Amino acid sequence: MESLKQAIRERGNVLSDTVLKVDSFLNHQVDPKLINEIGQAFAERFKNEGITKVLTIESSGIAPSLVVATHLGVPFIFARKKKSLTMTDNVYRSQVYSFTKQETNEITVSKDLLHADDRVLIIDDFLANGQAAFGLCEIVEQAGAQVVGFGIVIEKSFQDGRKKLTDKGYRVESLARIQSFKNGTVQFVDEFVTQLSK
Amino acid sequence: MESLKQAIRERGNVLSDTVLKVDSFLNHQVDPKLINEIGQAFAERFKNEGITKVLTIESSGIAPSLVVATHLGVPFIFARKKKSLTMTDNVYRSQVYSFTKQETNEITVSKDLLHADDRVLIIDDFLANGQAAFGLCEIVEQAGAQVVGFGIVIEKSFQDGRKKLTDKGYRVESLARIQSFKNGTVQFVDEFVTQLSK
Repeated sequence: MESLKQAIRERGNVLSDTVLKVDSFLNHQVDPKLINEIGQAFAERFKNEGITKVLTIESSGIAPSLVVATHLGVPFIFARKKKSLTMTDNVYRSQVYSFTKQETNEITVSKDLLHADDRVLIIDDFLANGQAAFGLCEIVEQAGAQVVGFGIVIEKSFQDGRKKLTDKGYRVESLARIQSFKNGTVQFVDEFVTQLSK
Repeated sequence: MESLKQAIRERGNVLSDTVLKVDSFLNHQVDPKLINEIGQAFAERFKNEGITKVLTIESSGIAPSLVVATHLGVPFIFARKKKSLTMTDNVYRSQVYSFTKQETNEITVSKDLLHADDRVLIIDDFLANGQAAFGLCEIVEQAGAQVVGFGIVIEKSFQDGRKKLTDKGYRVESLARIQSFKNGTVQFVDEFVTQLSK
């Protein structure tokens, strides 16, 4: 997705060989025009899959999930990282380790909201080693529902999250796939392939 | 806002005299049609105020903020409750106590994102005693920017948040104002006024 790649190049900030800061347009300040394009791109790719629910984890997946859910005409759910007083114990749970926050969160989804006949599209801002993705998968499986696929805004293709998911047969649609952050600049997978074939 | 009140009546769940559970359509599962109407209602009320930024706290204010920001054509920011590895110390901070989670969070916004010439609309899902609202205000003031007003989805009018904000001269626009949860049913402010005047 060209407008996303352009935002990453121009407004992203490579902090190390593995960490990209995109908090000026994706996960702290949000550019609504870009997020609407991102959500529409996911909706377009999954529109014929009979999706009944979109699922994400708070917080950075919420904005694109709203756009996807609006276009598909279905509700979305954000898994909670912290239990609220208004949540009962009637929840599905799984454990997710966050590399950027260096902590493990128990994520929960109310059992009232996911059912065995649901076809679920999972959305997240980043895919790295797949921790969050598998945590969400587990919750969908606990409900007896089906994961139809993953919509990822930015994939760190040098980590093994995509491979782990596709090895299990899941469809993964990433809008920007990053090959490396070498020398502080972002190299995307398709550019890398193009260069190799020259 | 009638569709919101109807959702609260039909899909909300009064858990006690002070706690309303709306996690089937607002803050766990989200109804995109309703959220789009909510966001549009805020945008309509504040469209002539020269807003340059919409500000909320993760997570439940994110979905309506995206819709407001889309309609006003400005970015939105969600204040972070947890510091991420990608955040530096270059942040504005304030303390917010959450009644429903019974904990105090330090909320932060990157100094790169708010500036003295910003006119800020603050959005949140609930207004009770105003803790979150004043925490966000403090951050806007630290930036030297101006709070133009508050867009609140559900106001617990039996708590003093609105009074504290309007006493300070702030404009508060709440889409549903709740007078009480007596006997497990929701009574809205305008209905209450109507009944008193009969």
